[in-house]
Amino acid sequence: MTSTRGEFALLDETWASVTPPAARRMLIAAAAAFSVRGYHATTTRDIAAQAGMSPAAVYIHYRSKEELLFQISRVGHTTSLSVLTRVPDGPPTTRLAAAVRAFASWHAEFHTTARVVQYELSALTPEHLAEVAELRRRIEAAVRDMVEAGVRAGEFDVPDVRGAVLAVLSLCIDVARWFKPDRGRTPEEIGDLYADLVLRMVGASAP
Amino acid sequence: MTSTRGEFALLDETWASVTPPAARRMLIAAAAAFSVRGYHATTTRDIAAQAGMSPAAVYIHYRSKEELLFQISRVGHTTSLSVLTRVPDGPPTTRLAAAVRAFASWHAEFHTTARVVQYELSALTPEHLAEVAELRRRIEAAVRDMVEAGVRAGEFDVPDVRGAVLAVLSLCIDVARWFKPDRGRTPEEIGDLYADLVLRMVGASAP
Repeated sequence: MTSTRGEFALLDETWASVTPPAARRMLIAAAAAFSVRGYHATTTRDIAAQAGMSPAAVYIHYRSKEELLFQISRVGHTTSLSVLTRVPDGPPTTRLAAAVRAFASWHAEFHTTARVVQYELSALTPEHLAEVAELRRRIEAAVRDMVEAGVRAGEFDVPDVRGAVLAVLSLCIDVARWFKPDRGRTPEEIGDLYADLVLRMVGASAP
Repeated sequence: MTSTRGEFALLDETWASVTPPAARRMLIAAAAAFSVRGYHATTTRDIAAQAGMSPAAVYIHYRSKEELLFQISRVGHTTSLSVLTRVPDGPPTTRLAAAVRAFASWHAEFHTTARVVQYELSALTPEHLAEVAELRRRIEAAVRDMVEAGVRAGEFDVPDVRGAVLAVLSLCIDVARWFKPDRGRTPEEIGDLYADLVLRMVGASAP
């Protein structure tokens, strides 16, 4: 039951920033449609149908199909950055484990959104891509800071910090590709597994 | 220079099984086209144009666009399975490191093909998907065998073998998403980095 409540809280939080509700409903419909047929093969008409609205209604809230993709990408990156960075203070080992647990779980829970966010970057306009790239740099920096703190504190043993950070992020992001709800592990179990594997990757001395 | 020769050898090997050369050229063109706009938004006309052939020529070699996707997927999975399994005999630590090095490098080298193979599975017919799923089970079994051999030999310490195997494969496959040629690490360097990280994940005692 705790798990279910947690999921709804995360769901609310991920899309809550999108208002009014009609715009939010359209964004969720667009993410679902893009994930099934890809961005280029999806029309605004498909998205409107999925949201149960008229095609014209799309343009009340979004200038274009690309604007929908950008908003999905912006919300997705902002939420995953916040999930990663709001871990409580504590020793680097505890913080990195908590961050990885939350980040990996988020990619399981929001696999549909995360897939669109990760695989359709090349469809963004240069201006929108630049904005998303800045969020991606902040996500990378957050993990790098945690790994470097662990090395400085003597808790981690990492010969190649940039390489390890790349692998940690990659591992968590790829959850969105293979995760299937109601089959195998829950998002929380994936978070626990990955926290343990990442501590091993950074050679954490206090497991 | 060794690296470049290695890459060409691998390139030859990946597509060599596809004959005649016109069919091979078309498959390579299809993989490139699918990777840019996605399977659903790509037409056989686009593929023919990319291959420098007439649209009718596609149907001499392939029954449909889905048949092209299936052949790309079949070749991609078969080659990556062979890359993974032909590591020389030796202690489990050495074998797993060699397998991961080769599998991760392959996903960097063939990132275009690998992306199509991984992200468009849902566009395959049920019959074709079943065939590809069998190759995916063999890939998973190959890695599981190596990890279990290491546990039995007392070289690895793995609390959750299935979870570790899932993560090892996921880590290598996701290289196809983020890899960019001529920027940052070479496929060989990624292979070396990942071999080290995976040995840490399985708690290899003899690095």
